Amino acid sequence: MVKQAHKIASQVATLFETSPLILDSGVTLSPVQVAYETYGTLNSDKSNAIMICHALTGDQYVASTHPLTGKSGWWERIIGPNKLIDTNKYFVICSNVLGSCLGTTGPKEINPETGQIYGIDFPVITINDMVKVQVGLTDTLGIQKLFMVIGGSMGGMQALEWLVDYPDRVGSMMLLATAAQHSAQNIAFHEIGRQAVMADPEWRDGKYQEHDTFPRKGLSVARMTAHVTYLSEDGLMDKFGRNLQDRDAPTYGFEADFQIESYLRHQGSSFVDRFDANSYLYITRAMDYFDIAARYEGKLADAFKKASDVPCLVITFTSDWLYPPEENKRIAHALNAAGVPVSYASITSDRGHDSFLLDIPEMDKMMTGFIQSAEARLMKDQRDDG
Amino acid sequence: MVKQAHKIASQVATLFETSPLILDSGVTLSPVQVAYETYGTLNSDKSNAIMICHALTGDQYVASTHPLTGKSGWWERIIGPNKLIDTNKYFVICSNVLGSCLGTTGPKEINPETGQIYGIDFPVITINDMVKVQVGLTDTLGIQKLFMVIGGSMGGMQALEWLVDYPDRVGSMMLLATAAQHSAQNIAFHEIGRQAVMADPEWRDGKYQEHDTFPRKGLSVARMTAHVTYLSEDGLMDKFGRNLQDRDAPTYGFEADFQIESYLRHQGSSFVDRFDANSYLYITRAMDYFDIAARYEGKLADAFKKASDVPCLVITFTSDWLYPPEENKRIAHALNAAGVPVSYASITSDRGHDSFLLDIPEMDKMMTGFIQSAEARLMKDQRDDG
Repeated sequence: MVKQAHKIASQVATLFETSPLILDSGVTLSPVQVAYETYGTLNSDKSNAIMICHALTGDQYVASTHPLTGKSGWWERIIGPNKLIDTNKYFVICSNVLGSCLGTTGPKEINPETGQIYGIDFPVITINDMVKVQVGLTDTLGIQKLFMVIGGSMGGMQALEWLVDYPDRVGSMMLLATAAQHSAQNIAFHEIGRQAVMADPEWRDGKYQEHDTFPRKGLSVARMTAHVTYLSEDGLMDKFGRNLQDRDAPTYGFEADFQIESYLRHQGSSFVDRFDANSYLYITRAMDYFDIAARYEGKLADAFKKASDVPCLVITFTSDWLYPPEENKRIAHALNAAGVPVSYASITSDRGHDSFLLDIPEMDKMMTGFIQSAEARLMKDQRDDG
Repeated sequence: MVKQAHKIASQVATLFETSPLILDSGVTLSPVQVAYETYGTLNSDKSNAIMICHALTGDQYVASTHPLTGKSGWWERIIGPNKLIDTNKYFVICSNVLGSCLGTTGPKEINPETGQIYGIDFPVITINDMVKVQVGLTDTLGIQKLFMVIGGSMGGMQALEWLVDYPDRVGSMMLLATAAQHSAQNIAFHEIGRQAVMADPEWRDGKYQEHDTFPRKGLSVARMTAHVTYLSEDGLMDKFGRNLQDRDAPTYGFEADFQIESYLRHQGSSFVDRFDANSYLYITRAMDYFDIAARYEGKLADAFKKASDVPCLVITFTSDWLYPPEENKRIAHALNAAGVPVSYASITSDRGHDSFLLDIPEMDKMMTGFIQSAEARLMKDQRDDG
């Protein structure tokens, strides 16, 4: 097959104009803008759509150039013509989540009711609310059933909401490095990040846009903290060790003597150039509230009971201590207990949580096999229907 | 034996008056004040002294009431008349480390050369520098050889410096939950804490005392971050889980909905009432620089070669991810390879790094046995000498 150029479309849909989006908090939003990218072409029977759900600080630019950073898409390795997710075959959709800051309705946008920037008056949202918007987008595109939903990390949480609340609208599902609930430690790290942002006087009680300021230092500390949780101790030791940065001896000062310090400072400062501080607060809060079994009296398997027709692949990485293998295994066990066909792979990696974003051949192999099975199943279903 | 009242003495020694303390950085300090507590009575041949080395935010009040918080000593469970470390028998010394803020020379004290508060002009120190001060104090007390040096966490790092540089001045040694070097992840978390402090405009480039301000918010975020590393994920889940704080349903806001949030905020705010922000910078920096094998071309066993007469007990806790069991085992292996008599115990606990401060019977048993062996050895030596 000849390698083709991507067919990429950047779009914004306006949803919930006639009937409002009712958030889990009870607050309503109307209308809701959703910014999204699509790759490839939707086929005539609309059976080839794959929804990619992005992570906390991810965005819709999964396989296209980020407009602020100029960097290539965050999963461009995976998605494209003749790639693992082949956009010659599939119509890939990735939308910026509700509450984020790349074009979808969120705290940095104008509140249509007041004409003012939402800021901290934006209502607190949940992962479930994000998915309601994705379902709305899918409706708008006329897609009754997605071929597949794929998500890693917070993307996996969205995928789980699809599975629990919209099982008849998903053909199959790929969950990577995710969790069915935020643990106390997960909440703790997010709370530290939020406190760091809010401690910055430039945050101005969330009204920094009005004051033309930005809590750069606070958001940077938040990002540094989160970033450490995305990596593993062994991975950090392999990559940076105790190596000094551009010097032969320690300076006996507070400069970034060590490479790890320099790296973290860079992670912090580059993040604040591309992400909104209030969005960071809202999305971390949504994740903290995430506990998909809570609506089922804490019984995770009960949450999945309607999903027995949706084969799932659960991939976890041995050194992920943010959403550790035990948590991913717990999801796989609950799926299995609910009668959902589930494949589970614990992949050896020393790269921590972020492994799902990296080039890991064993992951590719699992994903490729799973997509092929899903294709075969779809073709069989179509033959049976025909 | 009748339970006696503690014989407690709070003292300040002035050291390095005639010849200055030469720091690892090359900078000199003269004089150096060291604030310390002693418990019990030094015997006539000065053979019953135990030096306790405190951790990062610890202090000399190991078994006496903290003057700022009014709380009992941080290891009062262990140290006292008829306790595990029996002050009827032993003379226990605990001194506030160099760079700290409870009376020993540090950034919040007056620079005798200028008459001004040191602040950020205080020289950067190392763990080795802290121990030079402890050795000076031991000299002043006329103690040629300590019966034992005991330290947990950063206290263990000081103990390791004693072992490496002053093996003839220590009878035996107890190391708990420690590390022979700071890993990249350890440095990362400390750097986050320092950045949080320095990001607070009330830090005023380290000159907050002159401005009568204090970086409360920044130091609080630093403490929250560090505190999470002292606990384990399982321990947090057991203690707090996803329980809400004094409410039945989430508020859909940024209040401390979860108990873990409320707990962390409390940890942060109570810490700033008892600790100096610049001391926090200096001591974390000293720990980051700590790598005891560096002076021996990275060969840890070589560092211990002169210590073959100093029996060591190394205690680690299974859920300690700050200074994990593998690191403590590496110390034990190196001691063994250097011909040092070493006992190693990996104790099952879900309480993380802070386990060494808690009531853990298996730890007590190991410590008691080790002290009894050391006593027997001392008595035998004295008989042989006599």
